[in-house]
Amino acid sequence: MKFGGYGYRVKSNTFQAAIIGAVGYTGAEIVRLLHDHPCLKPSVVTSSHFEGEPLSRRCPWLATDLVLASIKDVKKADIIFVCQDAAFSMEHQESFISKAKVVDLSPAYRLRDKLKFESIYKLPWGGSRVYGLPELGNREEIAATNFVANPGCHATATLLALAPLVKAGLADGFPVVDSKSGTSGAGRSKQETQYLFSEHYDGFNAYSSVGHRHIPEIEENLGIKVRFTPHLLPVSRGIEVTCHVPLKAGVTEEAVLGAYHQAYQQEPFVQIVNCPPSVKQVHGSNRCDIFVTVDKETQFAVVMAVLDNMVKGASGQAIQNANLMLGLPENLGLPIHGVWP
Amino acid sequence: MKFGGYGYRVKSNTFQAAIIGAVGYTGAEIVRLLHDHPCLKPSVVTSSHFEGEPLSRRCPWLATDLVLASIKDVKKADIIFVCQDAAFSMEHQESFISKAKVVDLSPAYRLRDKLKFESIYKLPWGGSRVYGLPELGNREEIAATNFVANPGCHATATLLALAPLVKAGLADGFPVVDSKSGTSGAGRSKQETQYLFSEHYDGFNAYSSVGHRHIPEIEENLGIKVRFTPHLLPVSRGIEVTCHVPLKAGVTEEAVLGAYHQAYQQEPFVQIVNCPPSVKQVHGSNRCDIFVTVDKETQFAVVMAVLDNMVKGASGQAIQNANLMLGLPENLGLPIHGVWP
Amino acid sequence: MKFGGYGYRVKSNTFQAAIIGAVGYTGAEIVRLLHDHPCLKPSVVTSSHFEGEPLSRRCPWLATDLVLASIKDVKKADIIFVCQDAAFSMEHQESFISKAKVVDLSPAYRLRDKLKFESIYKLPWGGSRVYGLPELGNREEIAATNFVANPGCHATATLLALAPLVKAGLADGFPVVDSKSGTSGAGRSKQETQYLFSEHYDGFNAYSSVGHRHIPEIEENLGIKVRFTPHLLPVSRGIEVTCHVPLKAGVTEEAVLGAYHQAYQQEPFVQIVNCPPSVKQVHGSNRCDIFVTVDKETQFAVVMAVLDNMVKGASGQAIQNANLMLGLPENLGLPIHGVWP
Amino acid sequence: MKFGGYGYRVKSNTFQAAIIGAVGYTGAEIVRLLHDHPCLKPSVVTSSHFEGEPLSRRCPWLATDLVLASIKDVKKADIIFVCQDAAFSMEHQESFISKAKVVDLSPAYRLRDKLKFESIYKLPWGGSRVYGLPELGNREEIAATNFVANPGCHATATLLALAPLVKAGLADGFPVVDSKSGTSGAGRSKQETQYLFSEHYDGFNAYSSVGHRHIPEIEENLGIKVRFTPHLLPVSRGIEVTCHVPLKAGVTEEAVLGAYHQAYQQEPFVQIVNCPPSVKQVHGSNRCDIFVTVDKETQFAVVMAVLDNMVKGASGQAIQNANLMLGLPENLGLPIHGVWP
Repeated sequence: MKFGGYGYRVKSNTFQAAIIGAVGYTGAEIVRLLHDHPCLKPSVVTSSHFEGEPLSRRCPWLATDLVLASIKDVKKADIIFVCQDAAFSMEHQESFISKAKVVDLSPAYRLRDKLKFESIYKLPWGGSRVYGLPELGNREEIAATNFVANPGCHATATLLALAPLVKAGLADGFPVVDSKSGTSGAGRSKQETQYLFSEHYDGFNAYSSVGHRHIPEIEENLGIKVRFTPHLLPVSRGIEVTCHVPLKAGVTEEAVLGAYHQAYQQEPFVQIVNCPPSVKQVHGSNRCDIFVTVDKETQFAVVMAVLDNMVKGASGQAIQNANLMLGLPENLGLPIHGVWP
Repeated sequence: MKFGGYGYRVKSNTFQAAIIGAVGYTGAEIVRLLHDHPCLKPSVVTSSHFEGEPLSRRCPWLATDLVLASIKDVKKADIIFVCQDAAFSMEHQESFISKAKVVDLSPAYRLRDKLKFESIYKLPWGGSRVYGLPELGNREEIAATNFVANPGCHATATLLALAPLVKAGLADGFPVVDSKSGTSGAGRSKQETQYLFSEHYDGFNAYSSVGHRHIPEIEENLGIKVRFTPHLLPVSRGIEVTCHVPLKAGVTEEAVLGAYHQAYQQEPFVQIVNCPPSVKQVHGSNRCDIFVTVDKETQFAVVMAVLDNMVKGASGQAIQNANLMLGLPENLGLPIHGVWP
Repeated sequence: MKFGGYGYRVKSNTFQAAIIGAVGYTGAEIVRLLHDHPCLKPSVVTSSHFEGEPLSRRCPWLATDLVLASIKDVKKADIIFVCQDAAFSMEHQESFISKAKVVDLSPAYRLRDKLKFESIYKLPWGGSRVYGLPELGNREEIAATNFVANPGCHATATLLALAPLVKAGLADGFPVVDSKSGTSGAGRSKQETQYLFSEHYDGFNAYSSVGHRHIPEIEENLGIKVRFTPHLLPVSRGIEVTCHVPLKAGVTEEAVLGAYHQAYQQEPFVQIVNCPPSVKQVHGSNRCDIFVTVDKETQFAVVMAVLDNMVKGASGQAIQNANLMLGLPENLGLPIHGVWP
Repeated sequence: MKFGGYGYRVKSNTFQAAIIGAVGYTGAEIVRLLHDHPCLKPSVVTSSHFEGEPLSRRCPWLATDLVLASIKDVKKADIIFVCQDAAFSMEHQESFISKAKVVDLSPAYRLRDKLKFESIYKLPWGGSRVYGLPELGNREEIAATNFVANPGCHATATLLALAPLVKAGLADGFPVVDSKSGTSGAGRSKQETQYLFSEHYDGFNAYSSVGHRHIPEIEENLGIKVRFTPHLLPVSRGIEVTCHVPLKAGVTEEAVLGAYHQAYQQEPFVQIVNCPPSVKQVHGSNRCDIFVTVDKETQFAVVMAVLDNMVKGASGQAIQNANLMLGLPENLGLPIHGVWP
């Protein structure tokens, strides 16, 4: 991680952002984060169900006088954040593109594999777009496009945890990824018994034991297969992935650590740390903290990564991509300290 | 609450802040909050125990390369935040005043009553200083002084909840205040069995049933006696106070609500809301949300206030005071949206 | 509290219990508790929605091969526990009475005031039945009846906390009761946004600021009015009430404590403790722990009571009543130790 | 799992248990569990630090009039539960054996490998004793011995999850075990900053990334090496292990499931379930619930097991062993339903 300020003189004029679906968790999180952004401001916020109501009535944590508009009220803007499901994004994408650059937080355009997309999302594949994970090395591509597919939260954590190892050619066989996330990843509209507070409080369980829908997203961007199972933590925010990766014979801890330090030393949001990180230390921030060690008994690398699924795993990453697309410093307005305790 | 931007053109040069006791919760929280402050930056951070270590080793949630210094390394600064106990503050206050304006987060100089101070803190009384709760109406005094006594967290919540009612002369007899706070108020150095995660998780209990040390602080600033009992929530941050206040005969709900709207309509951080607020909605922000209603069956006003004890109850309020003391807009750099979910 | 065994020789034959509504929290809790009861066993469990399914499919915490039946399958039994809402209980009560003694966990027959009942529950009043809170002193009545109205959870905690003080004539003016409960009291079928894990986790708020529906239940059994506001804790189980009661002039702490010790010294489930109790210490047990002190500054008694809303506040109390109705020792099969940590 | 009653006629006379170290979590949990045991009762409870005090003063969740004794007060008993550390157990083991049969909850006598024991525990190896995990198939050995080494919590969960697969010869290469446990496993006497409520609440992190001390215990009883990393959940009780096991080519899901059903169909405390279990469903019970599936994409078995680390992972298992050693039904007095919600 490279510490330091934005290295940017704040302009007097600001960019306008439209947030499509502002009552959901990722949309509302963008509103929260933009409060501290010096030159990108929410100009219109929409909701399919609560048009005409103050945003703060539906989101009492936001102290704002923004009023929820219809999607028809979205005129020209500098950037549109689409915080809806895949079907909605696909239905409206042409309209969005005609009005502004787009960061799409839905999974509509993340996958390159038509068959897998259609099998998972039960929608006709519409092609793939630039995958917005700058740390994978495609910053120029992101800066040049007018449409970014913002990554999934499990995928972001897993890819940041594994990419350096795989790119350096140190892995031998596929990684086992044991992922744990907070409940906010399920969104705000799931109202089945299992999502009740009383049912999940004091609990912890795996789900989607095999075949989780983020697996193809991980595999396409990593280039190898993974064994992946997600779990649900009894917290609201945060993802921790622990990756167990068989190493080629003779690969040393120094070589492994070297690959990570080289990959991330210039990154503003990825930090290599000295002990297993807690999801708590990145709460509310756009950081991803990674710990790497080697189990000499079994010749496995063990890699832990933590991030806040609402920030680096969704809305913060969306703003990071928007910064690049608008020609702003990549880290502008994004928090790097966690909210602790 | 008055929404809106800072109305302030960011200066090219910034003010320097020294944070005395940066490894504790309130000190570290000031470092976190100043990341988003456009013209006040931490220049030196101290620790009595960990001098010479990187701050981030002791506070892994802070992504900073600040190194912990000794108190002797504190030279001239624009503002000094004292995040230590009362005895420490009293021992060093002269030295601090000679170097900078001071916001003292300890209880050293909050009380005007010598006997109560000495009885509670077992220290010789050193006088009282300007009490830094701007919403009570003493902004000019705060702006003019070089030393502010920053209020306690329970006192801030209780005073914001009750002051309008008492000032308007509507209360009849003393209020019952049932306060609930997260565990972070106990600080980071308490290492007794009762503070263990395993002991408090899934628990909730009152403490200091009578005679809590914030009571005189409340009573001195309110002008009347209160019946006050605090409780410990199984969360880390947040205070909720529910106040039950007997009203004079004939006082209507309209009169009560009117007193609150009048008191707070211009305030940047106090919001009157339409239903009982959750501590969650102000998590990480400098806001205080207040709900007021009247129980016609018993002719009591029922007033709830929530705030984040680490922000509006401590470090955010300290920055709010520093802004006033430095001639900056009062709300500069302070978060108003909560971190949710 | 009087420690000691059941003082009862276990019979070779056992009583049969029918549980109406076994998939909800209170019904399932009765199944759990009866596992350790030496002579009362669930013979039939019903569900309106899941007839024919194994109970364990809907309640994975119960390791049982009981299969959910229809209410029509309920034949003769020794006791019927009705774990449904008031309308359901009123519709079927005659049928139930024809088959067995009944403990009704719904609020259908708790209130003696017709107008208040109809105003709160929007149902025609059907009369009131024996109120099943044995510690109030009506054990003989409970033992002699064939139908008990099992108390509400807030009402149980508040009545146990206040009855000795009020009966002894020490209170002067009405008590302020600040109650806090876990989310399980809302039941298992509420599927609105506010009940989602993500929405309530890390939160705490009041609800029903005035006019909560348990107030008449409290007032009828206490004989005086109360100022009562409930709050929702970020835990699943547990109630804590803190009662602030103005005392008559001259009433001493000794007199107050004496009233509580006298009232509860022979009780198997009520314990007077020496410091403010945590809801955690009664988790899973049928106990109610009470702490009493006097605030000499304001001449108020301060009384805290904790209980598990699922056990002493619902299902455990139901079994306690059933024990009395079946001629068994009152404490038979009921847990007295909390599950900690 | 085989449902059903104890199949045992309760004797009029009961066995006496001594609990060495009753103020710690495992000792106190034995007191709690024995309340519902029909013929094993605590006759003496000891504490090194609080001799002479009521047990309930140190453990307010236990409603008992037992008084803490010195270890010198332990005379003849039927069973002694040793709830102390390894050094304490080794120092006193001869004395204990002279007085009663012994279940040792410390790790003193679990390992057969002298070098590993001495390297981990920094104590001279004293030999190994009968390993008390009846489901591994050594019930006769347990019933015949006078000293049982009670297994560790991570080891119990991992061994129950993996033994059927390994014994059936279906695994190919070593399993990856990703274990998550509540904080109570750290005991009640750890008073470092990291164990504070404020520090761990809302957090989740791995620890002992490589080389955890339960690994040799797992490997000795499993017969193969494992890749194992434990994590700390933000809950007090509960362990979940997710095991990712490479299967031999051609091994089908049917074969895998068959191995588990065969291994556990007669077990009173192990249940094969149909979806990934939550730690919540076994809270407070002596059950272990296991889910098994096969990832056909990678030819891995994925096995999840949950248990309550205080019960099946410690004190419940100790009573299960004591039942066998005393000639009682193995499941006598042990809870099988979880405490939910």
